[in-house]
Amino acid sequence: MPTGAVMRPVIALLTDFGLRDHYAGTMKGVVLSVCPEAVLVDISHDVPPHDVLAGALELADSYRYFPDHTIFLVVIDPGVGSSRRGIAAEAGAYRFVAPDNGVLSAVFDELKPTTVVELKNPQYARPLISRTFEGRDRFGPAAAWLARGTRLADLGPEVHGTERLKMPQPRVTRDAADGEVIRIDRFGNLTTNIRRSDVEPLVRSGRVRVAIAGRHLAGVSSVYAEAPPGALCALFGSTDRLEIAANGASAAELLGVGRGAAVRVSAIA
Amino acid sequence: MPTGAVMRPVIALLTDFGLRDHYAGTMKGVVLSVCPEAVLVDISHDVPPHDVLAGALELADSYRYFPDHTIFLVVIDPGVGSSRRGIAAEAGAYRFVAPDNGVLSAVFDELKPTTVVELKNPQYARPLISRTFEGRDRFGPAAAWLARGTRLADLGPEVHGTERLKMPQPRVTRDAADGEVIRIDRFGNLTTNIRRSDVEPLVRSGRVRVAIAGRHLAGVSSVYAEAPPGALCALFGSTDRLEIAANGASAAELLGVGRGAAVRVSAIA
Amino acid sequence: MPTGAVMRPVIALLTDFGLRDHYAGTMKGVVLSVCPEAVLVDISHDVPPHDVLAGALELADSYRYFPDHTIFLVVIDPGVGSSRRGIAAEAGAYRFVAPDNGVLSAVFDELKPTTVVELKNPQYARPLISRTFEGRDRFGPAAAWLARGTRLADLGPEVHGTERLKMPQPRVTRDAADGEVIRIDRFGNLTTNIRRSDVEPLVRSGRVRVAIAGRHLAGVSSVYAEAPPGALCALFGSTDRLEIAANGASAAELLGVGRGAAVRVSAIA
Repeated sequence: MPTGAVMRPVIALLTDFGLRDHYAGTMKGVVLSVCPEAVLVDISHDVPPHDVLAGALELADSYRYFPDHTIFLVVIDPGVGSSRRGIAAEAGAYRFVAPDNGVLSAVFDELKPTTVVELKNPQYARPLISRTFEGRDRFGPAAAWLARGTRLADLGPEVHGTERLKMPQPRVTRDAADGEVIRIDRFGNLTTNIRRSDVEPLVRSGRVRVAIAGRHLAGVSSVYAEAPPGALCALFGSTDRLEIAANGASAAELLGVGRGAAVRVSAIA
Repeated sequence: MPTGAVMRPVIALLTDFGLRDHYAGTMKGVVLSVCPEAVLVDISHDVPPHDVLAGALELADSYRYFPDHTIFLVVIDPGVGSSRRGIAAEAGAYRFVAPDNGVLSAVFDELKPTTVVELKNPQYARPLISRTFEGRDRFGPAAAWLARGTRLADLGPEVHGTERLKMPQPRVTRDAADGEVIRIDRFGNLTTNIRRSDVEPLVRSGRVRVAIAGRHLAGVSSVYAEAPPGALCALFGSTDRLEIAANGASAAELLGVGRGAAVRVSAIA
Repeated sequence: MPTGAVMRPVIALLTDFGLRDHYAGTMKGVVLSVCPEAVLVDISHDVPPHDVLAGALELADSYRYFPDHTIFLVVIDPGVGSSRRGIAAEAGAYRFVAPDNGVLSAVFDELKPTTVVELKNPQYARPLISRTFEGRDRFGPAAAWLARGTRLADLGPEVHGTERLKMPQPRVTRDAADGEVIRIDRFGNLTTNIRRSDVEPLVRSGRVRVAIAGRHLAGVSSVYAEAPPGALCALFGSTDRLEIAANGASAAELLGVGRGAAVRVSAIA
């Protein structure tokens, strides 16, 4: 077996292909054609079309729960067919294959990549590369060859510096943190860009409130069920970001807000 | 290999996580980290948010078609983070991991559990258990450890008595059965809580009608295609429940009804 | 191992079952009960309900990207329970299991089947075959038995001639091609039935325009990003069909058109 091959290599897929069309299935067919042993796991295919930032956040919230040696195949690619590069990267115990458009930014903020290569070696792509579906013809095969044991360096020349997205950052002072909603999930929970560490001293003081859409929530709960049924609460979610939620209901609907809505955590005077 | 381990253990997943967010994928990552040999099969992740009854019915309609030794990982969990228990159960040839909120009720009506334990042993959970995502930190790991060969008894202390949902039951007499719509599927077929056995003598007599939403359907068909295209019919569906359907169309749309709508099967006078 | 068995046989699934209900999961449970080694890959379960033509096109666009020996389990089956036949076919390096309603037409236009059998042998079906869910009771088991090594001929008697759909064909002359939109994907890209080969000489001449919904697009681009952001363009998509797309936006929304919309490629006078 070539260097780096594992018995049942995991390839985790994150795309904006949707599930109605055959695109994700076709890409999986290509992967299994190259590496029949691969175990394919969907993170999501329902990232909003072309929404590189949303994809970057989904990846950052999920990657660390996968086994060591997992290969992440990330295709949110509004620039498909253009001159943007395709890359493969090694970072921590993982490898990543994606267009170089910033979709790996949020991961690379946490996990500095040790090596990044450009997907240039035609030997590890399909012979004809469609200008509209590089997931099938370039990214899928590259991930599959890595799973099969091909070394990162064989995929193409090393590159230095990759595209980074400007991730929205909260403004944090001693008395307050001003952030925004960066993600709304299926339950209508509103994830913000304020991390536990940004406001921990404030919250520990016990005299804190959270403002969003003209509403003020007193304190930070530790669990949804602390709020009365249907009532709003603020709490730290599963990735330690501040979240606005509603017990058994949708905070997004109750508040009528979307991504980008301002959120302020402040000391009660 | 530990007691109870099988070569390619099947874990079947049923949740209300949706497919847009990374939650189901993250839970799978955790499972594969513990048990790389697991074969993961989705029953559905699109149970309506927090709808424990709907999840209970989907599980009851599907579980018996899975191989012996399948482990069902069922996370519809409106009480996440609260004091509701997490449980693992052995019933028939299967094991089940779920919150103790009644989501296993419909299965346990058919398949009496032989052992139920509470998920208390921290050794088989993630070190830090989020109060908002126990699927990732508690239920997923528990199912994975079972798949890997851990015995049910090792997950925690035995418990007696689990939460049961009040499943809506039909009222059955010699001349009629009064039930309701309990489920609407993607095709717009309306599944009722009236089982074939409830009305078999009535139906066999041949002089029977089915009333719903002010409409009367004559007799019970054996197949959709017996009705003219677009026409309504009543028949026994794939799990032997009475179903109102339309040949090539959506009965739900034609009738404008939802879950809970009254359905009456009665003898024609 | 019986003749034809492979170590990790791939079964690719294409249905209109949707992902909300348990149907696809249940069918997978049945498949794994018969053939635990099967690797299950979803092409899509979101073919529009009963839309045999849409299913035929998704299959034709995806099948060739799967490994040799893949078994395609295709269940778009508006005639479920009626007298329409169930079939299994061998064509090229693949096998197909489906209702005989034309859903394999587009594949068979490209890949002449060498053998087709009717699924008559009860040994390779579930003992009781539901009249509303043959995916679970007949098609799923047949695919699984093939994966396990059962020969096609054992599933039932050979048949000659299968249902064919009339696929919409473009009208092609030296100066123009008149076609239609046959598929709209999640990105709002409009796939037409005009193939690259239909209009290659025209396009090569360089003086060509594409008309749809009263708009005229000059020339055929080679990549989405050639058009300004949000602007419409025509290009050949990943399966070499002419596609109307918009750079970073939805052509379907911009044009307000659906399947069947007329598309004309013509020489500029």
